[in-house]
Amino acid sequence: MDSAGSPQRPSPAVGRGSRMRAAVLAATVEELAAVGYTALTVERVAQRAGVHKTTIYRNWQHHDRLVAEALAGHFADDVPVPDTGSVEGDLRELARSLVATLTSPVGRALLATVLSDAARVPELAEIKKAFFEDRFRRAVPVVTRAVERGELPVDTDPVELLRTLAAPVHFRLAFTGEPVDEATADRSVRVTLAAARAHALSSTD
Amino acid sequence: MDSAGSPQRPSPAVGRGSRMRAAVLAATVEELAAVGYTALTVERVAQRAGVHKTTIYRNWQHHDRLVAEALAGHFADDVPVPDTGSVEGDLRELARSLVATLTSPVGRALLATVLSDAARVPELAEIKKAFFEDRFRRAVPVVTRAVERGELPVDTDPVELLRTLAAPVHFRLAFTGEPVDEATADRSVRVTLAAARAHALSSTD
Repeated sequence: MDSAGSPQRPSPAVGRGSRMRAAVLAATVEELAAVGYTALTVERVAQRAGVHKTTIYRNWQHHDRLVAEALAGHFADDVPVPDTGSVEGDLRELARSLVATLTSPVGRALLATVLSDAARVPELAEIKKAFFEDRFRRAVPVVTRAVERGELPVDTDPVELLRTLAAPVHFRLAFTGEPVDEATADRSVRVTLAAARAHALSSTD
Repeated sequence: MDSAGSPQRPSPAVGRGSRMRAAVLAATVEELAAVGYTALTVERVAQRAGVHKTTIYRNWQHHDRLVAEALAGHFADDVPVPDTGSVEGDLRELARSLVATLTSPVGRALLATVLSDAARVPELAEIKKAFFEDRFRRAVPVVTRAVERGELPVDTDPVELLRTLAAPVHFRLAFTGEPVDEATADRSVRVTLAAARAHALSSTD
């Protein structure tokens, strides 16, 4: 649409737009990890991404939308939804990639900023809520496929199952400070599967 | 030992000491909830407790020791270790009192300050770790009694079971922002028992 620029520019507008979006979202994650949510500014994100501030405002309107989309995108890339053919394989991949991303330097920094700013910044509660809704929604097919294959009871609540899988990892990282590794992920898979098979994760509870 | 004081004083030294300690610990919890960990000072705690600053320094040496003991004492009072005669009854009481204390105004304030200051204050990591070790240690008899009664497999790891019980409540409060109530507590009990009975919480894993 915005064709006022140089006609010599080699990339089409759509490609330019999606590259711009990717650069801005990546810059937002980097800024969040570096300075935290409260110190994040559109100016710094724009500078890091090499775009004009107005480009960001035009595309995201609000600062919080940008943060929410950046976080969702970052974790969606880092924790892809697997399809290994078995529920155990899928949950193991999910839990292990969750552990890997949350214990990476960027993951730890994002976790720290999200938790540390939450008490002072009410918008962060909304961002976290939307973020987890998005995360759970993306992973629901793992559970529905398992039910279809007869691996889990038909009354399994997918979101409750995904919460049960994720909770121990987050609990250790944010509260007890105990080590988090692949053994944590694998234990969580066993607990979650046992609970689902005993109908402790049913949606009719 | 320290009998140099007035012999006319009506209360014995031990009673005086334990009343002083209780007042200081209660004042510490109130200050933590009111101003947070980073703004907490021994002066303010002393003022609130009606004691001299030097009394606090003499009894606790370090500020962090005071905070750790105050938090441990507060939650030990609020989440007593039950002995109902059945593992299901015990875990339900534990989980429900955990929910009640964490969702109270003081509990929410403590949670917020502990999480929000954690990124900036390395000592808080130690305090949290010690706090959870203390919490888990106190509740271990619930699990050992259940094993003795034949309600749980002998290979059950008590601390792993207690983590599994507590994780979903903390995950919702600190991360997803979803409601936390008695249903959350009861669901956590069912998940934990199913996992333990399927040997997913065994210590030999």
